[in-house]
Amino acid sequence: MLLTNEIQNYPGFASIGGFELANKFKEQAELYGVDFVYEEVTGVEEDPSCPDLCFRVRTTAGEYNATTVILAFGKTPKDLGVPGEERLKGKGVSYCAVCDGHLFKGKTVAVVGSGDQALEAANYLANVVSKTYLIHNYDKPIGSEDLVEQVLKLPNVNAMANSKVMELKGGARLEKIVLLTNDSQIREMQADGIFIEIGYLAKTEFLKDILMLNSKNEIVVDRDGNTSHPGIFAAGDVTNVTYKQAVISAAQGSIAALTAYNYIQRLRGKTAARTDWRSITPVTKRG
Amino acid sequence: MLLTNEIQNYPGFASIGGFELANKFKEQAELYGVDFVYEEVTGVEEDPSCPDLCFRVRTTAGEYNATTVILAFGKTPKDLGVPGEERLKGKGVSYCAVCDGHLFKGKTVAVVGSGDQALEAANYLANVVSKTYLIHNYDKPIGSEDLVEQVLKLPNVNAMANSKVMELKGGARLEKIVLLTNDSQIREMQADGIFIEIGYLAKTEFLKDILMLNSKNEIVVDRDGNTSHPGIFAAGDVTNVTYKQAVISAAQGSIAALTAYNYIQRLRGKTAARTDWRSITPVTKRG
Repeated sequence: MLLTNEIQNYPGFASIGGFELANKFKEQAELYGVDFVYEEVTGVEEDPSCPDLCFRVRTTAGEYNATTVILAFGKTPKDLGVPGEERLKGKGVSYCAVCDGHLFKGKTVAVVGSGDQALEAANYLANVVSKTYLIHNYDKPIGSEDLVEQVLKLPNVNAMANSKVMELKGGARLEKIVLLTNDSQIREMQADGIFIEIGYLAKTEFLKDILMLNSKNEIVVDRDGNTSHPGIFAAGDVTNVTYKQAVISAAQGSIAALTAYNYIQRLRGKTAARTDWRSITPVTKRG
Repeated sequence: MLLTNEIQNYPGFASIGGFELANKFKEQAELYGVDFVYEEVTGVEEDPSCPDLCFRVRTTAGEYNATTVILAFGKTPKDLGVPGEERLKGKGVSYCAVCDGHLFKGKTVAVVGSGDQALEAANYLANVVSKTYLIHNYDKPIGSEDLVEQVLKLPNVNAMANSKVMELKGGARLEKIVLLTNDSQIREMQADGIFIEIGYLAKTEFLKDILMLNSKNEIVVDRDGNTSHPGIFAAGDVTNVTYKQAVISAAQGSIAALTAYNYIQRLRGKTAARTDWRSITPVTKRG
């Protein structure tokens, strides 16, 4: 959601920035005592002999023990996988024009990609940066027709057809992009920034021994947010939910939280949450 | 949702009135060209030999033809089923204290019911009306303990235990409630209003020949909002979704709309909507 400039299909807001809406979610969760920790999860394990807090979540910074785990980490932008990319991430190399575009005001940048995602990025950047090169490896971008036409008309966007990024070069920051161009030559171009907009992946590799994944590596959940492993729940774009939309992910989050709550209540021999609002009905005592 | 005084679990709003949120949904839908018509649906039929617009939705006011139907009419308050009730609806007889309570400022009202719903109504009315009688048919209300205790302490709420409403009387408006009281006597009490807060029903009787319902008369849907009948979709509290919450119903609405759209596209031999946001990935042409 953070990567979306404007959301118009989240019920309650006729139009809102993705970043702003995400912040509202975060502040609301904090009101109810949620702690936020920013670390990359590298593994989830269960100690089968333990009495409580049986899940161990390993991160790049440490370990957490928990009674249940809800996985809701969305999808991750795809890498180009070229030399220099990893080292220059955040130093001119970005995967989100809408998030980072403003850091390149008045500068020269490249967008890599041929689909709607890349076209939307170029379209957005046209109003922010001085010059954008749209590097794609087709004769013409393959996004929706209207958008292709609109972007190719922009005076400060230069489409570079049939081109492929081979390497990213620079010292403290990105300086040059090495291209294989349409005349089969290796060429270097100068750029202050590069936006890699080539799709998203469910990065669930580290879960494959403990959870059922589908052919897109999405976590398989039932309609109540249960994964194939008791005590682990999942929500949002990282799951096999049919449609990926903000309100659908928000609902999946609520559902997974309620199911996790009921799982804990059952573990502790307590009553599950009422699933239906105001479901108590007085029983007629007489007649 | 309209019946809820304050919603705190809809992501995006830390706290909002149900009526206000419902209005935001409506205005947003209108922005995109949705027409609202307020009529009671009495039947849904399909003409099997028709080429398009094959569903006929009959209402108390007329008929509508449609290519698909999305059912999302929630649950309906239960009636007491006593003489006078139907005639005095909206004339002192209400099923929603939060909606109509303000119409009885400074007056004397009754709340009927023994569960949390009735207790919440009495609790709300205590700050609005002059005097509330809580008519219930137990020794003590059967709602959650905290709420029972809180309501029974209110100085302007009188609980009438082991009592049952037999009839509602009045001319242009409700005037008297006929009770069978705890001493097995028939008594009349004067009241300006009565709030019947005894639960909710899925009023799906008129759909039972065309759709699969569960034991609670809820419409059975799969995770994409499909009912058992192709072309008919459903969303929200009227369905067999496990948890009933505003954000979950909002998501189900989005899902049903997307599935209905794809159904129409397929009928017309066109491409279905992309289910995944920004899912276009450039295919690498070279190497």
